[in-house]
Amino acid sequence: MREIAVIHGPNLNLLGRREPSVYGQQSLSDINRSIEQLADTLSVKVRIFQSNAEHELVEYIHDCMDCVEGIVINPAAFTHTSVALRDALLATGIPFIEVHLSNVAAREPFRQHSYFADKAVATLAGLGAEGYLAAVRFWSTYTL
Amino acid sequence: MREIAVIHGPNLNLLGRREPSVYGQQSLSDINRSIEQLADTLSVKVRIFQSNAEHELVEYIHDCMDCVEGIVINPAAFTHTSVALRDALLATGIPFIEVHLSNVAAREPFRQHSYFADKAVATLAGLGAEGYLAAVRFWSTYTL
Amino acid sequence: MREIAVIHGPNLNLLGRREPSVYGQQSLSDINRSIEQLADTLSVKVRIFQSNAEHELVEYIHDCMDCVEGIVINPAAFTHTSVALRDALLATGIPFIEVHLSNVAAREPFRQHSYFADKAVATLAGLGAEGYLAAVRFWSTYTL
Amino acid sequence: MREIAVIHGPNLNLLGRREPSVYGQQSLSDINRSIEQLADTLSVKVRIFQSNAEHELVEYIHDCMDCVEGIVINPAAFTHTSVALRDALLATGIPFIEVHLSNVAAREPFRQHSYFADKAVATLAGLGAEGYLAAVRFWSTYTL
Amino acid sequence: MREIAVIHGPNLNLLGRREPSVYGQQSLSDINRSIEQLADTLSVKVRIFQSNAEHELVEYIHDCMDCVEGIVINPAAFTHTSVALRDALLATGIPFIEVHLSNVAAREPFRQHSYFADKAVATLAGLGAEGYLAAVRFWSTYTL
Amino acid sequence: MREIAVIHGPNLNLLGRREPSVYGQQSLSDINRSIEQLADTLSVKVRIFQSNAEHELVEYIHDCMDCVEGIVINPAAFTHTSVALRDALLATGIPFIEVHLSNVAAREPFRQHSYFADKAVATLAGLGAEGYLAAVRFWSTYTL
Amino acid sequence: MREIAVIHGPNLNLLGRREPSVYGQQSLSDINRSIEQLADTLSVKVRIFQSNAEHELVEYIHDCMDCVEGIVINPAAFTHTSVALRDALLATGIPFIEVHLSNVAAREPFRQHSYFADKAVATLAGLGAEGYLAAVRFWSTYTL
Amino acid sequence: MREIAVIHGPNLNLLGRREPSVYGQQSLSDINRSIEQLADTLSVKVRIFQSNAEHELVEYIHDCMDCVEGIVINPAAFTHTSVALRDALLATGIPFIEVHLSNVAAREPFRQHSYFADKAVATLAGLGAEGYLAAVRFWSTYTL
Amino acid sequence: MREIAVIHGPNLNLLGRREPSVYGQQSLSDINRSIEQLADTLSVKVRIFQSNAEHELVEYIHDCMDCVEGIVINPAAFTHTSVALRDALLATGIPFIEVHLSNVAAREPFRQHSYFADKAVATLAGLGAEGYLAAVRFWSTYTL
Amino acid sequence: MREIAVIHGPNLNLLGRREPSVYGQQSLSDINRSIEQLADTLSVKVRIFQSNAEHELVEYIHDCMDCVEGIVINPAAFTHTSVALRDALLATGIPFIEVHLSNVAAREPFRQHSYFADKAVATLAGLGAEGYLAAVRFWSTYTL
Amino acid sequence: MREIAVIHGPNLNLLGRREPSVYGQQSLSDINRSIEQLADTLSVKVRIFQSNAEHELVEYIHDCMDCVEGIVINPAAFTHTSVALRDALLATGIPFIEVHLSNVAAREPFRQHSYFADKAVATLAGLGAEGYLAAVRFWSTYTL
Amino acid sequence: MREIAVIHGPNLNLLGRREPSVYGQQSLSDINRSIEQLADTLSVKVRIFQSNAEHELVEYIHDCMDCVEGIVINPAAFTHTSVALRDALLATGIPFIEVHLSNVAAREPFRQHSYFADKAVATLAGLGAEGYLAAVRFWSTYTL
Repeated sequence: MREIAVIHGPNLNLLGRREPSVYGQQSLSDINRSIEQLADTLSVKVRIFQSNAEHELVEYIHDCMDCVEGIVINPAAFTHTSVALRDALLATGIPFIEVHLSNVAAREPFRQHSYFADKAVATLAGLGAEGYLAAVRFWSTYTL
Repeated sequence: MREIAVIHGPNLNLLGRREPSVYGQQSLSDINRSIEQLADTLSVKVRIFQSNAEHELVEYIHDCMDCVEGIVINPAAFTHTSVALRDALLATGIPFIEVHLSNVAAREPFRQHSYFADKAVATLAGLGAEGYLAAVRFWSTYTL
Repeated sequence: MREIAVIHGPNLNLLGRREPSVYGQQSLSDINRSIEQLADTLSVKVRIFQSNAEHELVEYIHDCMDCVEGIVINPAAFTHTSVALRDALLATGIPFIEVHLSNVAAREPFRQHSYFADKAVATLAGLGAEGYLAAVRFWSTYTL
Repeated sequence: MREIAVIHGPNLNLLGRREPSVYGQQSLSDINRSIEQLADTLSVKVRIFQSNAEHELVEYIHDCMDCVEGIVINPAAFTHTSVALRDALLATGIPFIEVHLSNVAAREPFRQHSYFADKAVATLAGLGAEGYLAAVRFWSTYTL
Repeated sequence: MREIAVIHGPNLNLLGRREPSVYGQQSLSDINRSIEQLADTLSVKVRIFQSNAEHELVEYIHDCMDCVEGIVINPAAFTHTSVALRDALLATGIPFIEVHLSNVAAREPFRQHSYFADKAVATLAGLGAEGYLAAVRFWSTYTL
Repeated sequence: MREIAVIHGPNLNLLGRREPSVYGQQSLSDINRSIEQLADTLSVKVRIFQSNAEHELVEYIHDCMDCVEGIVINPAAFTHTSVALRDALLATGIPFIEVHLSNVAAREPFRQHSYFADKAVATLAGLGAEGYLAAVRFWSTYTL
Repeated sequence: MREIAVIHGPNLNLLGRREPSVYGQQSLSDINRSIEQLADTLSVKVRIFQSNAEHELVEYIHDCMDCVEGIVINPAAFTHTSVALRDALLATGIPFIEVHLSNVAAREPFRQHSYFADKAVATLAGLGAEGYLAAVRFWSTYTL
Repeated sequence: MREIAVIHGPNLNLLGRREPSVYGQQSLSDINRSIEQLADTLSVKVRIFQSNAEHELVEYIHDCMDCVEGIVINPAAFTHTSVALRDALLATGIPFIEVHLSNVAAREPFRQHSYFADKAVATLAGLGAEGYLAAVRFWSTYTL
Repeated sequence: MREIAVIHGPNLNLLGRREPSVYGQQSLSDINRSIEQLADTLSVKVRIFQSNAEHELVEYIHDCMDCVEGIVINPAAFTHTSVALRDALLATGIPFIEVHLSNVAAREPFRQHSYFADKAVATLAGLGAEGYLAAVRFWSTYTL
Repeated sequence: MREIAVIHGPNLNLLGRREPSVYGQQSLSDINRSIEQLADTLSVKVRIFQSNAEHELVEYIHDCMDCVEGIVINPAAFTHTSVALRDALLATGIPFIEVHLSNVAAREPFRQHSYFADKAVATLAGLGAEGYLAAVRFWSTYTL
Repeated sequence: MREIAVIHGPNLNLLGRREPSVYGQQSLSDINRSIEQLADTLSVKVRIFQSNAEHELVEYIHDCMDCVEGIVINPAAFTHTSVALRDALLATGIPFIEVHLSNVAAREPFRQHSYFADKAVATLAGLGAEGYLAAVRFWSTYTL
Repeated sequence: MREIAVIHGPNLNLLGRREPSVYGQQSLSDINRSIEQLADTLSVKVRIFQSNAEHELVEYIHDCMDCVEGIVINPAAFTHTSVALRDALLATGIPFIEVHLSNVAAREPFRQHSYFADKAVATLAGLGAEGYLAAVRFWSTYTL
């Protein structure tokens, strides 16, 4: 049985409470529940992690090495600033999809650069929680 | 019954024949068939159009005004060069999702700029034909 | 009797229907009628053309060679992208005035560059339909 | 009866004497006379002012507050350097049209940036003295 | 009684020991004492926090949500690098003032960009410890 | 008894009348009165000057040489354009604090550059009239 | 027998009539005749096409797939603007030489960038019609 | 007898008092005296003017028209900011030499751009007061 | 006896497992052993630390203050993003050498900027583990 | 009889030995022989020179003055760095063609700028040794 | 007796023959003669050198060390390209004046940058041969 | 027995005499002696060369082809300007290490770019003469 990791970056623990006009009304546990339900349906194992600390995300990715076959990551603010996270993904060699809840292309200029996109298998932005589901669905049929 | 348009830009008629290492083995009619099947399942009406001519795409979008509720567009090369296509979408006011087969973030620098992304509801890149399906699935439940 | 051409670029056929807060309520035929009435008053011959296709505009300009003495052109989206249209104007050598309905200086950064302005006799932006009339009035008294 | 102000920036007092190949043969009083004649015809009150001093222009604009309904301004060299003049126009809130005698788009690169254009109702360049007249004509029918 | 948070970023725990020619002789507890004394005088509640860890600052800001009415933050090195901290402030919606001990405008070019200033109510730099006091004084009379 | 100069740049004479949503409701004389009251309390002599003319500000600064110990200056529009004012401050060698009523970091890109900040002792922006008071308070205790 | 395609971009149909000081006195049919004569001499088959329409050029290149071994293309204005044409050449995989009649390096800055040169086998500019002949001569002996 | 104008820009009235390590110990009248002595020796008429006001410099240049054959100008701070002064020089058509006391190339980056140098006959920087003398000496033998 | 600190940044704990074609086959403990052996030979005390957390590195550097005479640091990903780490080194005033295993000059453009190099005593890149040894050897003979 | 000079820049003496995948298998004397044979056929005199020293190339060009009618130059590395060579060509006024063996447009970014191209009659890149022959052929029929 | 060196860079040996409209009619020996005559008058020893070879200029400057008190250098093309020459001047520590015959500010953009100006005592451009004389005159009275 | 070349660029012959605060007190022969002693110890053959002439360095590198296995090069000023030297190294294919005596990262901005670093095996800067020794030590154990 295939295993997938879903990783949420900083401030996403505030979802539902945080700028609902930008990020929607769902809380992070609402989203995680939808992901787990879909994973069940698709018969893939899913592990989910959120942290506001760059090093915890880096080390979680290290731990995925050798057991996880695909990562779905929403690096949130770290999208634009964390080379350490990029290096963690490259070092482990696990293919990943970059997901954003909102359409970052419509936001501040500094959000137009991602340290992840050029190394990602795919990027999805603006689909809300549906973005995570589309990514999980994609990994479930992806052939390495 | 909700109606959606799927629009393919220049050179996509070569799919399957064109750079398979970048764009995959499926032909455009293979992809269109999957889209139509999914639309059936979701009970949405779908109309599909491909053209290598910017003005035909512009005028097709004009024709969508007042009847189509959501557009899925892969502007291909026009992503980076066509203000006319952007203006057509803005003029009609129909919400749209931008889809790319390959992960454009991993390609030439000039492909890092899109004339569409900042006005799109969402952008998807790198999922192959699955990107169109995720977009259609999204429109089928989207509330204006 | 002096002959003038008025040329409208892509999406201008939607005028009146398209973003009225930006472009006003008048349709393109309303504007064309005002132009023709003014031309009558000024005793100049006027020919008017609109197209969404760059090559049709290019070829229309070719056809103006040797018979038209001044062009009034609103290149719309092509203002920012069409070297072919610029080259057509330079190749025929017909002097032209660049007109924009809205004040492009107040819009997106990419609209701040024009492939026409440095070769135009004059540029007018933000006067609405009145811009075409001012340009026609100018050509009617212009000495080559 | 509607009142309009026409404001000329630095060095325009040299018109007729200054670089006639760029700015034409007319003196500033020739131009002002045409403006006054047109204003008469259109039944609008017009006040005209020229200064080489930025602060005199700033204070003239302050004085227009509460009595003038539209400004026609040729900021000349200050187009590219005066934030104080821009701020004076914004502070009074009087709508204005930016006019240039020559086609600035065909001149030095530093003349391609205007501190006024993005806040103007309209900009006109290259029509010579006719530019002022077109602007006055526009204000005479403009609805706030 | 109004509550205010004062937040100190990385390396500020070294104050007094660290580059005294740039940052002065006062230790961080000296400064905190002055802040508390002033808060007493102004009858506002003040909570003070320092951390070298971005995630601890992020989470401290999360904890301020719903109880703190104004933040005084010296993001120190994170001023120039932390989108996560910016997002935490935006997510909680608490208004904040950005304070710097030294005049950052006189230092390295990379210190000329702040991820906070455009979203701050105010920014103060170069007043030394007095900057914190001016900010607290401002919050004590600020009307939301 | 210590003497301080407070200098207001162009258009600040319009305060209260000018864009109240940006600059607040207080007139310049209201602000000046608060400054004088504070100066009294702190037992410092204060002289206050406003001008819309760059050369008057330059010459006022020249006159401060040898008698004023600290300057509080809001260069307003000249912040971004006046090297002459910068040179006047450097030439006299009087230390100065740069004050802005609004948070300039949240405004147009050209307002992000100051010809003063790198030479100022401190900069304050966004505190409204309170910014002048904080600066005067700082000078009253500043040791050269 | 080897087959070569020679493709002329927009406005080249005006050759001879268009800016003779830049492009020379020869008409396009004069040039085409020279090309055909040389092809005869070298025993290669040559097909020649001109269009002002980007999509016709794109589709002509599609049609060359599987039968043409080398392309000589003068993209004219499209050199600087057409990603669609670049993509058509890459998609078909036919090697091509980029030819310009005039020395584009001596013209406007925007003509210094080509969407073709980095993928071309060779580029030739400034040889006039002789450039086409040199390219045809090269293809006739080129080993894939 | 040939007439030359020597024009000093803003803050130069402080010479001798202002930053002596950069500008030397001589006062402006010391320098003017040397210029007048040299002019006497060379049998040229010289008129000298200093102002801190841009418009006074502009109008002084206007007044030189038709009587002065060569200008020596030290625009000081206006070197980097005044298009109005540049336009005054171009409008009158009087050839000019740009002089700077200090070597501006060794100072702040914004001092590396001059609005005058590309239109000057010559530029001299770093020779101190000797620069004015070299320029006057040059004009005295210059053939128009 | 002189004391030196060797500090390894994020992801270096993966050495040997991580991208061996870029970083070689040695694990971090292999490298640390070589460093300790060399230190023994050179009779210097060495302390070694690795962390994926920026704040732990910052605080480790704080702890080095007053006891360590030279630092050898491979900031890894933090080379390009951490002002906090730079500030920690500057604040403690301990001289340091920047070491990179691979030749960063041959990698992505964003790796061409270091927040450390301009303040380092020396930088070494591309020597693999030998880089640490060369740096330790240098510190062992370095005179403050 | 017309005389032409062919000039080879630095490192071209290594041809055949140097990076054959980029520059081909032919040695420089092979190429020179082909050039001489063609010159014979075309009845033009040809002189050929190679040097790795910029000053020898500069002085060779000086020597061509008054006797050579056209130059074919492959400046190799000096294409991107030698203003002295550019100045030598401009000073002598001899028209020249710039030739490159490989397609420089497909190489490093710094190779995209040439100090020669804007002053050349023509530029050819990517034709290998054939490029020299095409240039010689062109000069043999060129009318000054 | 004070000794001065005058150094001429590449292509200056062509003076009089080279682009007379830019550089004037005088040959280099004409200029050198004027310099020697002036040196005689001023009782300074002068040594003059010209070379087209960067290394000869570098080594000539090395030879000036310990005997020459001031250098007058026209680096010609090397102004914009030679760090080696800059380093030679810095290494010897001899103060120098940079002279250009023509006004480089009016020429190509790449001529706007000098590797010498920021380290020169003074720069003179556009005075023709008179520039050398002014520089020699300056050195003759210069106090180290 | 393995052979290594050590190559010193322009102005390094002045070492010891040149800016000792930047480059230290050792002369070039002091450094060369240390290199030869180390080479002896390591049983590698070493050849050492210095030149101020780019072409002599280029040709020295050509001569290393086929006999030298590793180069240690301090290109000095040519680091930032010589594509010819880069091309010589690439053409011969000999692996090289780039060495700088001082820490170039702390010097002028133009010294931040190297034409060598991206092709070097390693770069070392700031270790003084020790940098050469570290590089020689590395080559002595390097496996091709």
